[in-house]
Amino acid sequence: MPSSSAPQLIMVGSIGLDNIRTPAATRENLLGGSASYAAAAASFFTSAGLVGVVGTDFPRRHETLWRRLGINLRGLQRVRGKTFRWSGEYEQNMDHRRTLDLQLNVFADFQPKLPQTYRAAPFLFLANISPELQLRVLDQMTAPRFVMADTMDCWIQQAREGLEEVIRRVDLLTLNESEARLLTGETSLLAAARQILRRGPAQVIIKRGENGSVLFSDIAGIALMPAYPLESVVDPTGAGDTFAGGFIGRLAAAGRVTAVELRRAMLYGNILASFGVEAFSLDRLAQLDGRQIADRIRAFRRMCRQP
Amino acid sequence: MPSSSAPQLIMVGSIGLDNIRTPAATRENLLGGSASYAAAAASFFTSAGLVGVVGTDFPRRHETLWRRLGINLRGLQRVRGKTFRWSGEYEQNMDHRRTLDLQLNVFADFQPKLPQTYRAAPFLFLANISPELQLRVLDQMTAPRFVMADTMDCWIQQAREGLEEVIRRVDLLTLNESEARLLTGETSLLAAARQILRRGPAQVIIKRGENGSVLFSDIAGIALMPAYPLESVVDPTGAGDTFAGGFIGRLAAAGRVTAVELRRAMLYGNILASFGVEAFSLDRLAQLDGRQIADRIRAFRRMCRQP
Repeated sequence: MPSSSAPQLIMVGSIGLDNIRTPAATRENLLGGSASYAAAAASFFTSAGLVGVVGTDFPRRHETLWRRLGINLRGLQRVRGKTFRWSGEYEQNMDHRRTLDLQLNVFADFQPKLPQTYRAAPFLFLANISPELQLRVLDQMTAPRFVMADTMDCWIQQAREGLEEVIRRVDLLTLNESEARLLTGETSLLAAARQILRRGPAQVIIKRGENGSVLFSDIAGIALMPAYPLESVVDPTGAGDTFAGGFIGRLAAAGRVTAVELRRAMLYGNILASFGVEAFSLDRLAQLDGRQIADRIRAFRRMCRQP
Repeated sequence: MPSSSAPQLIMVGSIGLDNIRTPAATRENLLGGSASYAAAAASFFTSAGLVGVVGTDFPRRHETLWRRLGINLRGLQRVRGKTFRWSGEYEQNMDHRRTLDLQLNVFADFQPKLPQTYRAAPFLFLANISPELQLRVLDQMTAPRFVMADTMDCWIQQAREGLEEVIRRVDLLTLNESEARLLTGETSLLAAARQILRRGPAQVIIKRGENGSVLFSDIAGIALMPAYPLESVVDPTGAGDTFAGGFIGRLAAAGRVTAVELRRAMLYGNILASFGVEAFSLDRLAQLDGRQIADRIRAFRRMCRQP
């Protein structure tokens, strides 16, 4: 997708430099952050504008990659100081990770300010950052047609009030399985989803890592999305963000929010995430093309067919 | 299905009395065991003959239930002594359980002996018992067309040689996720499944509890089967056995092993298991009818449709 002066989709979230240790490898200064992954995934389908902040240490080559993917960077702020940094480590099965270090740096004082060309965009993705920042971005949009928000456990625990306002004001909330349980106090994902739907959004997507995801929607009903089976997972970091970016990017490209388009967006988000974890950072997405996506979609459809 | 003098499907496995503690309730002397669940599930689709052993303490009402489900009990031995007993406890999320007590009792000296009318059956399910007993049953069959075997971690650890022979001689091996990893040393389920397929069976089903199951088949390719979402799970005991029984029962009813019939069997096994966990023991299956199965199959197909 070529970058355009008025993007169809705006995304705000974290942009960071990651140090990641898996059982097989250790890598440093990787391009990371929720908005990085989400924007890269969305770029395969629509014109996306990125809102975020980086420091003066942020390598130019990362910006070059985004530009090559056609991402609009007018909303990217570069300020004096160090870029947000995260270090994490995965256990043997890649199903648990722990944070080794986290430095907010320039992110601590981030004041998102949307360029004029961004404000009338019909689709908005509030990737995982504080509810306060999510609301500040939402307030700058003139009349978004569809707003999706992600969140995480720390905001559920420490910024509940802001998060509740986000939940009331968005069309779709996405969060992972344990976060859905934490937010609602329900054990069953179905019960948790129903409770969230009663709080405002017409859609909720529960992400389940290597077990896929589920959409609960007033429009589309329930859509079960198993993960695409992979021979090996190199780095699961950003899989949920890649999924979300692929989802909202595909939906923004369709331009309308129907049962079929919501389900198709689930499918594309799921497949984008399956590519994303095949390499560190955005390395696999940087090499991805439409034919590879189409081939994997076709194979996945065969695996899911219920006779 | 009415019981017939020559069943289409034979199943051997454990029959026990269970004490089960969940976060919500404690129940004692429940009908349990791998063969109990599997036979009940299969009975909805085909004529099934049960091979197993119970003690003199085994309540008549359990036999009455089996008979009502149309299960052929000619292969059931009742011997002096106590029935096999298992006690277990589930954690809050129902995703982990621990065994509190296990008494083999009459199961310790079980010598399976198949009635003449069982030996020519085309379908055989070796539910979870020792590989040695599984082989003894297999050896008594004249020419089974399709043999499916289940196993568990203790046999992988303690009866590896016998298990390897079982694996070589069956058409389908089913085991759960952690057992597949233990058996093969592979982390990826796809890699684990491929390794198992190289050892003999043309099919392997990896059971993933609340995350559904996956079929890997030389005939049918890969079939991803997410679990049917439930508002609440009362007792997950026997879910894998119910799945397996529903699977092989549906396949035996079809009478032929094709890509479509293998996938259809996955679908029916999955739905039977979703009913089974809605109550303790066989309580839900005892109340189940064909219309309820068809309704849930229809709802589930909608949830899985990939646009």
